[in-house]
Amino acid sequence: MDIGEFEFIERIKEHFPARDGEVGIGDDCAVLPQQSGFDTLVSTDLLVEGVHFLREDASPEQLGWKSAAVNFSDIAAMGGQLTGSFLSIAIPHNLPTEWAEGFIRGYHEISQHYGAPLLGGDTTRSLDKICINVGVLGRIECGKARLRSHAQPGDLICVTGTLGDSGAGLQIILNGIDRNSDAKSLVHKHYHPMPRIFEGQCLANEEGVHAMMDISDGIGSDLRHILHASHVGAEIDTAAIPLSEPLKNLCGKQGWDALDFAINGGEDYELLFTMAPDTRPTIPYHVIGRITDTTELLWLNDSGQQHTGFRHF
Amino acid sequence: MDIGEFEFIERIKEHFPARDGEVGIGDDCAVLPQQSGFDTLVSTDLLVEGVHFLREDASPEQLGWKSAAVNFSDIAAMGGQLTGSFLSIAIPHNLPTEWAEGFIRGYHEISQHYGAPLLGGDTTRSLDKICINVGVLGRIECGKARLRSHAQPGDLICVTGTLGDSGAGLQIILNGIDRNSDAKSLVHKHYHPMPRIFEGQCLANEEGVHAMMDISDGIGSDLRHILHASHVGAEIDTAAIPLSEPLKNLCGKQGWDALDFAINGGEDYELLFTMAPDTRPTIPYHVIGRITDTTELLWLNDSGQQHTGFRHF
Repeated sequence: MDIGEFEFIERIKEHFPARDGEVGIGDDCAVLPQQSGFDTLVSTDLLVEGVHFLREDASPEQLGWKSAAVNFSDIAAMGGQLTGSFLSIAIPHNLPTEWAEGFIRGYHEISQHYGAPLLGGDTTRSLDKICINVGVLGRIECGKARLRSHAQPGDLICVTGTLGDSGAGLQIILNGIDRNSDAKSLVHKHYHPMPRIFEGQCLANEEGVHAMMDISDGIGSDLRHILHASHVGAEIDTAAIPLSEPLKNLCGKQGWDALDFAINGGEDYELLFTMAPDTRPTIPYHVIGRITDTTELLWLNDSGQQHTGFRHF
Repeated sequence: MDIGEFEFIERIKEHFPARDGEVGIGDDCAVLPQQSGFDTLVSTDLLVEGVHFLREDASPEQLGWKSAAVNFSDIAAMGGQLTGSFLSIAIPHNLPTEWAEGFIRGYHEISQHYGAPLLGGDTTRSLDKICINVGVLGRIECGKARLRSHAQPGDLICVTGTLGDSGAGLQIILNGIDRNSDAKSLVHKHYHPMPRIFEGQCLANEEGVHAMMDISDGIGSDLRHILHASHVGAEIDTAAIPLSEPLKNLCGKQGWDALDFAINGGEDYELLFTMAPDTRPTIPYHVIGRITDTTELLWLNDSGQQHTGFRHF
């Protein structure tokens, strides 16, 4: 059975009932209280079928989770708390009801996990492709939002988690590689990113933490945004870049370069931040380099020599 | 020449340069100050090529204007001030540069007209169709937002402007009718709606104004949302529904029913509101009926008899 846009809205309402004293779904606008001393954070992302996802590859639950996750990660990148999200979706006439239910289930699961209510949106028809826009609102104490432009020479460059897992997961999917437990774990990382909301808030409470962003394209590309915005350079100790065991195992077996995934893979949704050397954040993190007063980005191997042979730089 | 997504962003930046002290385009999130005593208003709308617009019918300037206008109108519907907008757009590979420039010009024109900065968004690729999501933020003093659920028995039902012009404009476009000065005026109303931001704010300052919404689907459908949300009924004096001279002239010539356009036409983006009978708003408006304590919606002709023969009710 196929689902129409009005039924889609009904399914959403079942999963996200209106809450007392809150104006959300159903009026012309959502109405959210402001509080002096806080800033509102806003981000928005558009996902198009055939460009950002293939319906035959991702399950609808995975897509529902990930559509919200990539936006939640932008709030994490500033150090903010989640206020809620807005889901706009255009659905073709032949969309099976099971697909819609799965998508809403995945979207609901991550919203529950992070305590972020769905506050509104738009459901409409499309000719043939699914098109999804998620907007997310967050908040943070004034002056605490961590910008890309805040890096200072002498800062340590740090990341949360491990890098490259999601990119390797994508290659496993695209190349139809057998799903042993390592491969399964990497594919799961690709479809089920965990935005670092809690870690971002902890880091925003540390005065010594300066610039911050989330890793969506890979540090090879994302780090350049920080350097450009802060007018600084960087040296990266490539041997210090954190790699997971599943990534190392799989790359060993397939003859792939794990470091290449870690630097260029993208979609890890970990946090990349810079901090004064005497800062001691209470969350787990890895120091991978330092900010310099040049405008160069140098990738050094464990002998301190410049690394060569990467694909993209 | 075709335009890529990065060039599209560059063109947007040319039209919407960053402003001092404001974090907008370019970081993970936009950062906007909050103020106690105010509420944030949020609305979002998704427009898909082939469903909401045809590229061969609307000029890119018109589409840029209208994409923002329909969202600005949601802020007007609550009585709020505009804070700014977020534009997400997916563009196919063969999109001509002139089209993109025209779209941005139209979007910029309405943003300037209403003093609403572009605060962020997302530009991405699509396979073949343009897909646009506009998110809009506004603000209003706490407790002043006018909801659909605020109508009270005895209220007068009022509208701003004239109704049906946009719907007739669409029929002129679809039927390829000659553009005499009346037809031109109606087509212009269809492509160039003027959201009632100023009027909405004036009405939100009148204590006697109760429920409010914008007219996007036609009062035949939109009024039912107010009645349903407020658990009330209504009587409409169909002879009091304001019709423009161009609409009456064109309908006379074409043998069309002007009242049908006014009630079912949609996309007028005028305000529909209810108010206590002793309220005297300082903006122009028309009283078209009254709220009753039934749950019926009655359409009365000028003899007070129930009107029959409309298409949709």
